[in-house]
Amino acid sequence: MSIYDKKNQTSYALGTTIVIELLKRRINDVVRVYIHPKQIDNEALTLVSNFCKNSHVPMIRNNEKIFKDLANKESCMMIAEFNKYCQNLQNDANHMVLVNPSNMGNLGTIIRSSLGFGIKNIALIKPCPDYFDPKVVRASMGAIFNVNIQKFESFEEYEASYPTNNLYPFMLKANDTLGKVQFKKPFSLIFGNEATGLPDDFLNKGTPVLIKISKEIDSLNLDNAVSIALFEATK
Amino acid sequence: MSIYDKKNQTSYALGTTIVIELLKRRINDVVRVYIHPKQIDNEALTLVSNFCKNSHVPMIRNNEKIFKDLANKESCMMIAEFNKYCQNLQNDANHMVLVNPSNMGNLGTIIRSSLGFGIKNIALIKPCPDYFDPKVVRASMGAIFNVNIQKFESFEEYEASYPTNNLYPFMLKANDTLGKVQFKKPFSLIFGNEATGLPDDFLNKGTPVLIKISKEIDSLNLDNAVSIALFEATK
Repeated sequence: MSIYDKKNQTSYALGTTIVIELLKRRINDVVRVYIHPKQIDNEALTLVSNFCKNSHVPMIRNNEKIFKDLANKESCMMIAEFNKYCQNLQNDANHMVLVNPSNMGNLGTIIRSSLGFGIKNIALIKPCPDYFDPKVVRASMGAIFNVNIQKFESFEEYEASYPTNNLYPFMLKANDTLGKVQFKKPFSLIFGNEATGLPDDFLNKGTPVLIKISKEIDSLNLDNAVSIALFEATK
Repeated sequence: MSIYDKKNQTSYALGTTIVIELLKRRINDVVRVYIHPKQIDNEALTLVSNFCKNSHVPMIRNNEKIFKDLANKESCMMIAEFNKYCQNLQNDANHMVLVNPSNMGNLGTIIRSSLGFGIKNIALIKPCPDYFDPKVVRASMGAIFNVNIQKFESFEEYEASYPTNNLYPFMLKANDTLGKVQFKKPFSLIFGNEATGLPDDFLNKGTPVLIKISKEIDSLNLDNAVSIALFEATK
């Protein structure tokens, strides 16, 4: 279906809202914008046209094929192709740290929720998805263009790079329950893989935190657990 | 792909974990259990066989076609067909109320999170998905068999049926922020549609609650917002 490959130097923002978010935040990384031949003249088109004109970004209006190749939804009327970029996390800022996340939709949702609670620095510990995959970009609703994301070979590499952050690994085996823990800034909220959680050795790092749930379910969905933690840690 | 239709009197639980949950909770509603011809002899099979023997539920081991018709995943080795059933919500219990939810995956996740925080009564205000669709059952990880779900033609019908519950509609236009609101039991946490939220007239019902987020995102994902509310209201 998709012509996107993670080895590509560029990726795609699909859909008007996400294209506009990209143009607002990272226009210098935009290679070109595709407008569907059926896009009507409206406010969104005027806005996008102005962005493109002012920054000399080519607008292409006669390539219907790329919409068929990239977008599942008929309603997708704009696509922006952009150069993938690298970022470092900010020092002395709160971080979201995801250790081996596997689901692209979850990753996008977590990026969006993190931004929603003011956390703009996200560490990914490999293996992890290609965070510029159009599926992640789409699930983030464009929030990805407004945060710093950095990949690390291992958690140890992350820890060595940002040694002053206070670590809060979220684990079902933790003793301290969320709601009683005081989060000391700058903090790092650390979550494991969707299926397996964090390895046991995280019990020895910082202050492990438990989100208490009834015994009738095994665990919360990863993005749901992350949102609860974000709410509590930032309130 | 799927042979399931919402008009059917029966639906399907797909996958070993969910089949076992169904057998534990609602064995009298199970019509038959399909075991994939490639299922090996293991503990799960013994458990399922014992359930079926004790309750005279037929086990069918030579129907590979139903796995192709119903299950996307090759790893699905068990399917249980069950009679759909009706339930009323408990009086004097806390409720989750979803007004016009549209996404089946979200609905399943919300059922699971609700159970995780001890809320076992879920009201759905129409229009809403068929909650016994295999997609919802699957996203709930079987939690659906452990809660009461009731559909209502309108919110007014729900309100008239359970007049003693204290209403807490979650809205971006609310004044009272989550974290400061005291939830008085029995409470009803009320959420709107994924895209449109609750209609403005809910501002006049009970105590509308705001989950405060930064202006950099429009809203949280519905299931993420619900989980945050569940955590706060039940802690």
